[in-house]
Amino acid sequence: MSVFVQEASMKTFEELESKVRSYSRSFPTVFEKSKGYKLWDVDGNEYIDFFAGAGTLNYGHNNDLMKKKLIEYIESDGITHSLDMGTIARKNFLETFNDVILKPRNLEYKVMFPGPTGTNTVESALKLARKVTGRDLVISFTNGFHGMTMGSLAVTGNASKRAGAGTPLTNAVAMPFDNYMDGIDSAAYIEKLLEDSSSGIDIPAAFIVETVQGEGGINAASFEWLRKIEAIAKRFDILLIIDDVQAGNGRTGTFFSFEKAGIDPDIVCLSKSIGGYGMPMAITLFKPEHDIWGAGEHNGTFRGNNMAFITATEAIKNFWANDEFEEEIQEKGEFISDKLADLIVKYPEIQGELRGRGMMKGIACGVDGVAEEVCKEAFKRGLIMETSGPSDEVAKLLPPLVISKDGLAKGIEIMDVSIQEVIRKRGLSA
Amino acid sequence: MSVFVQEASMKTFEELESKVRSYSRSFPTVFEKSKGYKLWDVDGNEYIDFFAGAGTLNYGHNNDLMKKKLIEYIESDGITHSLDMGTIARKNFLETFNDVILKPRNLEYKVMFPGPTGTNTVESALKLARKVTGRDLVISFTNGFHGMTMGSLAVTGNASKRAGAGTPLTNAVAMPFDNYMDGIDSAAYIEKLLEDSSSGIDIPAAFIVETVQGEGGINAASFEWLRKIEAIAKRFDILLIIDDVQAGNGRTGTFFSFEKAGIDPDIVCLSKSIGGYGMPMAITLFKPEHDIWGAGEHNGTFRGNNMAFITATEAIKNFWANDEFEEEIQEKGEFISDKLADLIVKYPEIQGELRGRGMMKGIACGVDGVAEEVCKEAFKRGLIMETSGPSDEVAKLLPPLVISKDGLAKGIEIMDVSIQEVIRKRGLSA
Amino acid sequence: MSVFVQEASMKTFEELESKVRSYSRSFPTVFEKSKGYKLWDVDGNEYIDFFAGAGTLNYGHNNDLMKKKLIEYIESDGITHSLDMGTIARKNFLETFNDVILKPRNLEYKVMFPGPTGTNTVESALKLARKVTGRDLVISFTNGFHGMTMGSLAVTGNASKRAGAGTPLTNAVAMPFDNYMDGIDSAAYIEKLLEDSSSGIDIPAAFIVETVQGEGGINAASFEWLRKIEAIAKRFDILLIIDDVQAGNGRTGTFFSFEKAGIDPDIVCLSKSIGGYGMPMAITLFKPEHDIWGAGEHNGTFRGNNMAFITATEAIKNFWANDEFEEEIQEKGEFISDKLADLIVKYPEIQGELRGRGMMKGIACGVDGVAEEVCKEAFKRGLIMETSGPSDEVAKLLPPLVISKDGLAKGIEIMDVSIQEVIRKRGLSA
Amino acid sequence: MSVFVQEASMKTFEELESKVRSYSRSFPTVFEKSKGYKLWDVDGNEYIDFFAGAGTLNYGHNNDLMKKKLIEYIESDGITHSLDMGTIARKNFLETFNDVILKPRNLEYKVMFPGPTGTNTVESALKLARKVTGRDLVISFTNGFHGMTMGSLAVTGNASKRAGAGTPLTNAVAMPFDNYMDGIDSAAYIEKLLEDSSSGIDIPAAFIVETVQGEGGINAASFEWLRKIEAIAKRFDILLIIDDVQAGNGRTGTFFSFEKAGIDPDIVCLSKSIGGYGMPMAITLFKPEHDIWGAGEHNGTFRGNNMAFITATEAIKNFWANDEFEEEIQEKGEFISDKLADLIVKYPEIQGELRGRGMMKGIACGVDGVAEEVCKEAFKRGLIMETSGPSDEVAKLLPPLVISKDGLAKGIEIMDVSIQEVIRKRGLSA
Repeated sequence: MSVFVQEASMKTFEELESKVRSYSRSFPTVFEKSKGYKLWDVDGNEYIDFFAGAGTLNYGHNNDLMKKKLIEYIESDGITHSLDMGTIARKNFLETFNDVILKPRNLEYKVMFPGPTGTNTVESALKLARKVTGRDLVISFTNGFHGMTMGSLAVTGNASKRAGAGTPLTNAVAMPFDNYMDGIDSAAYIEKLLEDSSSGIDIPAAFIVETVQGEGGINAASFEWLRKIEAIAKRFDILLIIDDVQAGNGRTGTFFSFEKAGIDPDIVCLSKSIGGYGMPMAITLFKPEHDIWGAGEHNGTFRGNNMAFITATEAIKNFWANDEFEEEIQEKGEFISDKLADLIVKYPEIQGELRGRGMMKGIACGVDGVAEEVCKEAFKRGLIMETSGPSDEVAKLLPPLVISKDGLAKGIEIMDVSIQEVIRKRGLSA
Repeated sequence: MSVFVQEASMKTFEELESKVRSYSRSFPTVFEKSKGYKLWDVDGNEYIDFFAGAGTLNYGHNNDLMKKKLIEYIESDGITHSLDMGTIARKNFLETFNDVILKPRNLEYKVMFPGPTGTNTVESALKLARKVTGRDLVISFTNGFHGMTMGSLAVTGNASKRAGAGTPLTNAVAMPFDNYMDGIDSAAYIEKLLEDSSSGIDIPAAFIVETVQGEGGINAASFEWLRKIEAIAKRFDILLIIDDVQAGNGRTGTFFSFEKAGIDPDIVCLSKSIGGYGMPMAITLFKPEHDIWGAGEHNGTFRGNNMAFITATEAIKNFWANDEFEEEIQEKGEFISDKLADLIVKYPEIQGELRGRGMMKGIACGVDGVAEEVCKEAFKRGLIMETSGPSDEVAKLLPPLVISKDGLAKGIEIMDVSIQEVIRKRGLSA
Repeated sequence: MSVFVQEASMKTFEELESKVRSYSRSFPTVFEKSKGYKLWDVDGNEYIDFFAGAGTLNYGHNNDLMKKKLIEYIESDGITHSLDMGTIARKNFLETFNDVILKPRNLEYKVMFPGPTGTNTVESALKLARKVTGRDLVISFTNGFHGMTMGSLAVTGNASKRAGAGTPLTNAVAMPFDNYMDGIDSAAYIEKLLEDSSSGIDIPAAFIVETVQGEGGINAASFEWLRKIEAIAKRFDILLIIDDVQAGNGRTGTFFSFEKAGIDPDIVCLSKSIGGYGMPMAITLFKPEHDIWGAGEHNGTFRGNNMAFITATEAIKNFWANDEFEEEIQEKGEFISDKLADLIVKYPEIQGELRGRGMMKGIACGVDGVAEEVCKEAFKRGLIMETSGPSDEVAKLLPPLVISKDGLAKGIEIMDVSIQEVIRKRGLSA
Repeated sequence: MSVFVQEASMKTFEELESKVRSYSRSFPTVFEKSKGYKLWDVDGNEYIDFFAGAGTLNYGHNNDLMKKKLIEYIESDGITHSLDMGTIARKNFLETFNDVILKPRNLEYKVMFPGPTGTNTVESALKLARKVTGRDLVISFTNGFHGMTMGSLAVTGNASKRAGAGTPLTNAVAMPFDNYMDGIDSAAYIEKLLEDSSSGIDIPAAFIVETVQGEGGINAASFEWLRKIEAIAKRFDILLIIDDVQAGNGRTGTFFSFEKAGIDPDIVCLSKSIGGYGMPMAITLFKPEHDIWGAGEHNGTFRGNNMAFITATEAIKNFWANDEFEEEIQEKGEFISDKLADLIVKYPEIQGELRGRGMMKGIACGVDGVAEEVCKEAFKRGLIMETSGPSDEVAKLLPPLVISKDGLAKGIEIMDVSIQEVIRKRGLSA
């Protein structure tokens, strides 16, 4: 837990790449290898991963089972790229996903391949909701994050990213997320606006909701609030889109993050960990009655990333065929909560507050700048984690779901030391 | 060249996938393997590929050199997914791209990783142009195609795809492409609109241009027209964006499609074949003076597809270190032109017209529906090709650039037979 | 107070006019003459006016002093129409408005003639605020009403009128008005959204506020809330637009409705009664530092309605040179309140609630449809009044400010009888 | 024809009014009286009017017949302001307009009172067209001018006025007007864009056309072009809106400017001279099958300007009951053409070109700045006229239609002297 020697030259990135680069600034080293919950840089330093590719590596880095299947596929000259042509890999994924994920949960969804990124699935969901309802407006939520292309950006809260559009973002309005502000019953407020024919808020095509806001500050919506939002949606014939790009794929304890809320979304967006191995992949799920697309009405060159289908299929088979993995996440989630609660009590100087659900947790720090400095100190000691929230006020834990308890404990130990260091440096007192 | 037996069941796709599926309808079989310019389906049929993943497989399927590097990388547990953190694979790509592609062409561009798809790079280009100029409007061109997310869709011509948005597409206006209509000097018309302070067409942030329109009908802009558009851009401080997603990576005979036009675009969009092996990847290039992005102002989970960086680097090293590949494309391009010209003369019934540049060619058929039927007949005989153009009037050839002359000849032979069959079935006469 | 004979044929309007006609439906007779607070129809019936042209006839119908000046002006062949050329009538108006209205109130505003209607002044205000700040979004309020042209309609709450646009209304978002909903501190909520850099609500160009919402239900904002909104505007460099089209010109007790709130708006919109005699006229006022318009950047054919300038000047001289008129309004406003409070107590069956300020008052009825039926019954008995509010739940009193107490008493007597009749017909009980 | 003494102080306007003021700059005097085709300023100077309130005073200033009726109406305490309640004045207008204008022309239009300004009628037309078709886009034309509110501004060409919006203007696209550019067959081009399903130009809700562009440079569309545009509209179910605000009311020789073209517009916008005497008034006409408005779906405080109805009715009765007035306009129009043609020949130095139709004419000057200076010199000599066109290159004649030939001749004489003076001052040679 001593401070690392991180000497890798970042010159190539600084000179050749645009100023838009971000993570090479937060984690200024050059990574070379990774396995499970660990990464190694060119200086030979070993890092514990509490970041997991922003939720893309739920199954850890370079999982051996998937790796084997992937190499076999490549060696056999299996189809690599296919748009949305029929391929064995795509067929197997569709069938496995249906058999292992959808059927046992009594979910009857059509699967769409919208292009391989999170913003592709969100854009397809927004387009479909507008087509189905004939309405233009979409209601998003404060601190929501849905992507960087113009449709998704319009439903994203972050002001700096919104400014990147360079032109007004329209046909979307943000409403208060659950517990956004004391005294505001968010669901009741939204319902009143919609039933008031003079409120100025048009009946929208859709609500787009993250059950736990990953970028917005690890804000977990209560199941009750989600049910209320669903009820409002039903009352006004609004489609409910769950953006499960970050919170899905087991992150919060169940495959879909909304399972325990007992809701039945019209459209679900999945990406990040759906591919299993970290390769670009996304799918959009929707109820059959909403499947009014024309052939090719939405398309995209990289819809058919067959290597990702291979690892996605393997991931589903290995992790979701029974309940074991869910139980494991549940248990580790509680372990994390306990450990973070301890830190919060131990260091009142940082005015910490526990946030999140499952293995998507964080400490919101009441003192400005603390979370960011903790992450910096942690990186110097071999822990990769980032902040979240409108003021980067949350130190966010998003470890691979497959991390061992030992790995978790070690990572949290580094957090502990890092918090101490920040308190010392800034001379904080409780 | 007899008709194939294609018995693969498409049931999985029909039942589990959304109606939006498209290529599994045009090519109703299940593919299993591919190599070079060939694919094989589960029924054992062998297909010649005149489609190349819509321009993604310029180096052919599963190229052995790239395959070797890719497997080595995977076996070594190299970093798979990294957002835009520093990795060896990303560093090598940046350096190789700079040394082999940019420097020898005296191009000084900053590289941005905007997410791995064509529409990601287009969206980033549009956002940047609007930020740099402080303007909202973008001028696109008739029959242009740039992507399916809301920003890109607004500059895309296809009416059915535009309708998919479900809401108005704004801040974009289509102007006539080169040779759009007899009698209209497109560049002069655009210039007049912009110099007329009462034309109703605002000075735009950017022009977004494909030098050869891949989806819009294999319309090749003349180099003179491209220079005129560039001159207008300079006169009014408009940024020139070349969308080289389909026409770049050697497709028209040079790495960038605009090299021979002698123009100097402000922003260049690359995707499809940039990854070399068919894996999702895209980059956006722009002049250093336009690099006004804030850190992370545009981001995305799959910016760091390291496997694609490995194969991209290998592709650049192998194909672009000297002029041989360019010469080869040039030669095959002429071979295709000659062969297609022969077909046009041989079958006046289809009222054919030769289109395109380099290895991006097509026959525009003056008789409604003919191109589409020719492609259908060709598929039944083992040739994969698709139509292009607003009325699907162009039978489009987009073979892997590495295809042999023999392969080309065989494919064109199948076209010949297919044309005969269509003429016969429809009883066409000249 | 017996029921009138109203036999005028409405055939001309039904046959020749569009279905969009509205007031000829609510008040199905043909009016012929008017004076002070009375109108007469072609059947010779006399009506008390509690409507005042929706706030346009604050000085009553056909005021004799203005009438005299107007006829003299017409007889002398004074300029009728002048766009914004210099005319005596326009000069006199500007000087009188400055001397009598602005100077004594220590208001330094530039005057703009934006066209003669309420929506013209609102559009000019929105345009100016966007130009001054360089921002696009405008924050409006629930139940706000600002006009029917596209800019004004976007900040108007009424769903049916919004639907009339036929296309999405953008760059505006409605926030909760003062006391919109129990438990929501509207100003605190807005402030939180704006200081939260991830709320998804962009910093707007302007707030547009009615201090008392005329169409939205006679909702009077507290002065404290108005001061809070002003403070938020100052904090974030947002312009504060007061739309005083209906509440201004003395309606709430002072010339501008915001005087007693002690706020200092950046832009003020005036129309309706500004012309004095009911002829189309509007002005936009703004602080000199915001006067960044180019010459003619906003224009309009009917900016120079000189007849309206004549009567406007006369109205200002006669009614606003001293405090008498304000005191009179104050007194009558209290008289109305007392009488309405009595009705509410007398008829608990209608679940009435007193609303408003000055001579802009109403009874909000807790029983669906009651307010509308009361107005219908009142019309049959010689009282013209209309409903207001999202569900037409408010019986609204907007008499000419010059009405006598006797006139008020008689009108309220008709209301009393009408309420009785509605209770009787519907068999309501408390 | 000597230079006038113009000493009126403009201080009031300069000090109290916004910088947006325009005509008080072009015509820097204070006007006091007017009659027929003449105005007088406070210095006692007499002016000939070739401006007619930008087309509002087709029947001249303060016409005695209308004046008499107006004063009688005011004296009798007729209803001044009525929103859209039934009044005698409104009834008479509707019936007279129907009997004298619509019926004899076999036009079956519903009449809507959209508010009293040109931009009110245009906004109502655009809204209705969008509602009827369910489409968003409207096609306008280069150099078109339709108004200053956000909907109308989006279909207006002038860049400076568009910039006044302060936010992007959307859902409109400008197409080339008739004869916009040599070599472009505008109608054929538009038709091709609309039949090309990949042009990027969506099928619009409407075309909005001025038959002669008043502000855009007195460009008269040929009747053939108008018929072609109508045919395209019919082919694609697009509504044809004729904005006859400036060119209607007899200006081009017939009551509606499109009569001789033989077209049958879906919607017609009238304002300016419809009121007869220069008071604000506007109407929107549309075919009964498009009358799908809900009651009050579009409204406005000043829809019922009864004084304007009185003079409008009188104007229609006096001028349009037979063909005499049309013949008179026709004759004077030819007189103007002859005289202007003479000037053009006489002064080759200004490179003049005759423009326009009926009594809406102009000389487009090929030398920069000449038209503007001619107007300035003319003003100093007692002629009021303004420029038109994107570069103010047209000296525009818009005299009252009732002007005498003597008045016309005198005015054109002043033009002659003014041209001489400009040639002299600038030292122009042919």
